[in-house]
Amino acid sequence: MSFSTNQARIRCTQLAPRIGDGPGNLAQIETELASAASDGIDLLVLPELATSGYSLTPSEARDAALPADSPVFARWQAILGEHTSAVIGFCEHGGEDPSGVLIYNSAVILTPGSAPTIYRKLHLWDTEKSIFTPGSDVPPVVDTPFGKLGTVICYDLEFPEMPRSLALRGADVIAVPTNWPYISRPENEHAPEVVHAMAAARASGVAIACCDRSGEERGTVWTEGTTVVGTDGWVTGEMAASGRYDAAVELAGDRRRISPRNDVFGDRRPEFYEL
Amino acid sequence: MSFSTNQARIRCTQLAPRIGDGPGNLAQIETELASAASDGIDLLVLPELATSGYSLTPSEARDAALPADSPVFARWQAILGEHTSAVIGFCEHGGEDPSGVLIYNSAVILTPGSAPTIYRKLHLWDTEKSIFTPGSDVPPVVDTPFGKLGTVICYDLEFPEMPRSLALRGADVIAVPTNWPYISRPENEHAPEVVHAMAAARASGVAIACCDRSGEERGTVWTEGTTVVGTDGWVTGEMAASGRYDAAVELAGDRRRISPRNDVFGDRRPEFYEL
Repeated sequence: MSFSTNQARIRCTQLAPRIGDGPGNLAQIETELASAASDGIDLLVLPELATSGYSLTPSEARDAALPADSPVFARWQAILGEHTSAVIGFCEHGGEDPSGVLIYNSAVILTPGSAPTIYRKLHLWDTEKSIFTPGSDVPPVVDTPFGKLGTVICYDLEFPEMPRSLALRGADVIAVPTNWPYISRPENEHAPEVVHAMAAARASGVAIACCDRSGEERGTVWTEGTTVVGTDGWVTGEMAASGRYDAAVELAGDRRRISPRNDVFGDRRPEFYEL
Repeated sequence: MSFSTNQARIRCTQLAPRIGDGPGNLAQIETELASAASDGIDLLVLPELATSGYSLTPSEARDAALPADSPVFARWQAILGEHTSAVIGFCEHGGEDPSGVLIYNSAVILTPGSAPTIYRKLHLWDTEKSIFTPGSDVPPVVDTPFGKLGTVICYDLEFPEMPRSLALRGADVIAVPTNWPYISRPENEHAPEVVHAMAAARASGVAIACCDRSGEERGTVWTEGTTVVGTDGWVTGEMAASGRYDAAVELAGDRRRISPRNDVFGDRRPEFYEL
């Protein structure tokens, strides 16, 4: 298969991690990495906390946590090979401070030829606040073979400043590992988090790839709302029975020029925004 | 009728102004002001450039333009009475500078007991750039009997910074006079501008009332996409055959507290946003 250089093949696999089964969770992640590499995927996105499951007790979180320099990530990069990049949510052991072990809700960004990059979720949802320490670094924008890749995690996306900042910093695609608890919505509407992704994508001409999880976990039902949004703000791609959602997104350089006289970045008037 | 103090009755009337017929345009505006007042509406929103039509030549724009201190606005306020506020898009004569007459794409905000407030569109769309001068003031947030009212015009809404700024400055409702040229979209999707309104409303717990125009004008077909979005981000209200779209929106003070531990403003991490 051959693709235009302005197109990226994105896959999100809607896994169902299991609490307490670290080896099983890592094995299913590695199956997906190998499959994405062999299918020539440019970017694979896996869910938030794919290594551990979500509804953790503090001690389960500590037991499942991997440090940022875990050899697991080098192994994953080797599986991905010379072409495929990936963003994978994981439970991070961030060392200790006087208050105890620091656990982060993180994502690792892997791309050929670079060391792993770690992003720690900035905006924690509900009970996450009693388990995880919030991040304290600006989210990364990483150079990959297909373009510049930004990453946020789940609730982060509901802050319009986040995808906007990443796009202004040059992101062509934003990966969003998520675990979306199901929220009821009016008939014929997208999940509300998808509405955020659609608006953010169109506002900044950036593609957004949200990888949700599946299954039920300790009473939480998930939205199973995995969705890729193109740079025009519309949903693209398709979920297969395998849980793999594949999409080809156009990343043309002129995508932010939306009329003969308009450019979504050039038209900004930041001196009048009070944020 | 009686309503909870946290509810606002909003009406958007999807008028079809006609170029060159200033008296007719003002007459239909005044019919709507009187009707909204007599129906006990809290906020009436009318389209962008409701006084003049949209696809103007520069000389037509100059001929149609009203100054900010036009007696028309005092008359409108008298028609609205002691209860009803309104936001009306108009073509503004802003005086002259060495380059010539300054024409703005503006909105007048009328509320009982206050002088008219003028907002001049900050982000101009396409050929508007050859007719109008862009605004150079932060959009107003005006105290009204039903709550705090922000205003943006049409393309302004596509900059996520705009509704976010207004909500952070206290707006309960954002009025959006618009003229949306029709853009094709996938089946079963809202107009893309409505997707922006939905995401912005949910992100900040603010209601957004977009009043589009109707009819065809010099070859432009309009979306006729008038929509009110509640503070939960979902579409509310209904369009009548008369072109009047009525909605009752809840403005409860706790609407930004979305879980026992989450508040959409309190959870922000502005030190990590690069805007």
